[in-house]
Amino acid sequence: MHVVVNAATSADGKLSTRRREQIAISGDEDFERVDRLRADSDAVVVGVGTVLADDPHLTVKDDSLCDQRRERGEPEHPARVVVDSKARTPSDAAVLDDAAASYVCVSEVAPVDRRMDLSDHARLVTAGDDRVDLLRAFAALESSGLERIMVEGGGELIFSLFEVGLVDELRVFVGPTVIGGRDAPTLADGEGFVEEFPTLSLETIRRVGDGALLTWTAG
Amino acid sequence: MHVVVNAATSADGKLSTRRREQIAISGDEDFERVDRLRADSDAVVVGVGTVLADDPHLTVKDDSLCDQRRERGEPEHPARVVVDSKARTPSDAAVLDDAAASYVCVSEVAPVDRRMDLSDHARLVTAGDDRVDLLRAFAALESSGLERIMVEGGGELIFSLFEVGLVDELRVFVGPTVIGGRDAPTLADGEGFVEEFPTLSLETIRRVGDGALLTWTAG
Repeated sequence: MHVVVNAATSADGKLSTRRREQIAISGDEDFERVDRLRADSDAVVVGVGTVLADDPHLTVKDDSLCDQRRERGEPEHPARVVVDSKARTPSDAAVLDDAAASYVCVSEVAPVDRRMDLSDHARLVTAGDDRVDLLRAFAALESSGLERIMVEGGGELIFSLFEVGLVDELRVFVGPTVIGGRDAPTLADGEGFVEEFPTLSLETIRRVGDGALLTWTAG
Repeated sequence: MHVVVNAATSADGKLSTRRREQIAISGDEDFERVDRLRADSDAVVVGVGTVLADDPHLTVKDDSLCDQRRERGEPEHPARVVVDSKARTPSDAAVLDDAAASYVCVSEVAPVDRRMDLSDHARLVTAGDDRVDLLRAFAALESSGLERIMVEGGGELIFSLFEVGLVDELRVFVGPTVIGGRDAPTLADGEGFVEEFPTLSLETIRRVGDGALLTWTAG
């Protein structure tokens, strides 16, 4: 399994405003890059906070990329995966529609009625007591044939993935905007590390549109 | 007056851990760049949070750069400026020592006894009722002949400078580390913008040591 975390941040490292409102950070050129990355993935993973804030669809937007997937014998779109310890994903969330396969990873604290409801719309992966055990959940995804994983946030999920060592690559588009805010979501939130910080290797830096794309590998 | 904000962040945009402990983000090559930038400045400005957390000296470390300043008829080191609404800078702070000129910018809420005490060690600039009025304070610095300003953080001061439009340039070294933490200080903290976001132009991107240096101009 290969896990790529992809995110767009403001120049000051924020994913959205303190109100969790996404603003346009990247332009068309980066949008196309992200769409290609989705098209090259078996699954696109987000945390439930991102679903609740943005209700993303997470499908491939470029029809020719969908065609190429079909020609390779793959489904038109990658699977969508929500990491959702308490099963808070709304049943009418865009990621649960019929456009592609959907998975929701929950923990044992998720209410049974919510799990029942979600299981009508997605394959449920139950792992962990009060939070999703990401190592077990991702192993289950791998068993389902999902090898090339793209993670699109948010900051809580990304931090947790670094915490358990699941991140292979981090691609960050840094855009020409300042959002600010001590309470605004950042690329890696959670508790934060205070010792033994994950270290990365900078693979490439390049200008993409009005911003900079930094590609890191984890080591 | 020309204001350059310089900072080193982790790959996820943090200045330090949630405990406000700085970790080594940049290496020797970036250290030398920062020292040269200091040597090319009339004043180095920090917020009081940075003084309380790190007790920096803010002087130029490379003797040959100090020599060059003297040859140009400048003081050996740039002035050190603390933005400190409530006059919390300790009297024995390193920035108040005799190595260079020192300024402390306070507001009217700063206790008079603290102001008296600080005035033995630094030139006081009083501007603003309950917070330092940065436009007035920086105008006073300019009147004192401080034209080339370098700001070294922290995130509260940097946000406030963007808020009042005082930032001309932003230079960010992004290092190969993940710090994480929803409560860890970021490049721009404060309340955060929710509309009318400052926009930047990406001037240069280049690899410096193990990280990436992004140079932005505001406007």
